Amino acid sequence: MTHSDDKCIFCLIVKETIPSLKVYETEHSLAFLDINPVSDGHTLVIPKYHAVTITDLPDEYLADIGPVVKKIAIATGATAYNVLQNNGKLAFQHVDHVHFHVIPKTNDKDGLVLDVNTSWPQQKAKKEDLEVILEKMKARIA
Amino acid sequence: MTHSDDKCIFCLIVKETIPSLKVYETEHSLAFLDINPVSDGHTLVIPKYHAVTITDLPDEYLADIGPVVKKIAIATGATAYNVLQNNGKLAFQHVDHVHFHVIPKTNDKDGLVLDVNTSWPQQKAKKEDLEVILEKMKARIA
Repeated sequence: MTHSDDKCIFCLIVKETIPSLKVYETEHSLAFLDINPVSDGHTLVIPKYHAVTITDLPDEYLADIGPVVKKIAIATGATAYNVLQNNGKLAFQHVDHVHFHVIPKTNDKDGLVLDVNTSWPQQKAKKEDLEVILEKMKARIA
Repeated sequence: MTHSDDKCIFCLIVKETIPSLKVYETEHSLAFLDINPVSDGHTLVIPKYHAVTITDLPDEYLADIGPVVKKIAIATGATAYNVLQNNGKLAFQHVDHVHFHVIPKTNDKDGLVLDVNTSWPQQKAKKEDLEVILEKMKARIA
């Protein structure tokens, strides 16, 4: 592991200092069962590199993790599932090492449960407001 | 576009038959603003390949899309944000073409809103139950 943090529980899982229920791994990624699952087959896919959020993660780890998430989706056997990756405490991140949840859903009560009225506060935006946001965003990555 | 569906709105956006507010693109991926955002900067990142769910998407598209999602996270300027990708109607998928939501979150009311009591029905699992699930999953990708 080229970049790790000895106080990070996920780095310790990668190093096998802490055991895990490993589903699959590659040189750059590790997938293991969540021990507090929200549905059967709930799996975490993490990079073997300590980064708190995806903006800190080198591209080669992000390139590797996508196909691993797909492999895990196949492994679950689920026909409906969510892939969720949270960045920052406000956005429900509880472990400070990038992790992708793969969450099978078999009914409206298990897995990720979104309430259409409260979980997804969408609003039809004005085109001129979107254009202002777009220019700011493009400037940040120009 | 090597694989597209003329009735798919996201394929038509890739082909520019339908206009979009494009933030960024690569050979394999396109990122554009969601016109019904749940927060400012809410962006969709899609592969330039028609696949309904990630299990149908070739690995090279998944490998490309991870670094693009990171680029969009940088573009939003957000310190807290969620990456969400839904597969199947039961799991809240509304457009049948793989899409990753990048959703900035600035407060507890905007962006993705999860209720700890209802949205995330986690349960401490028994190790023996997890081991049964693990063996089934490994068998599916062996």
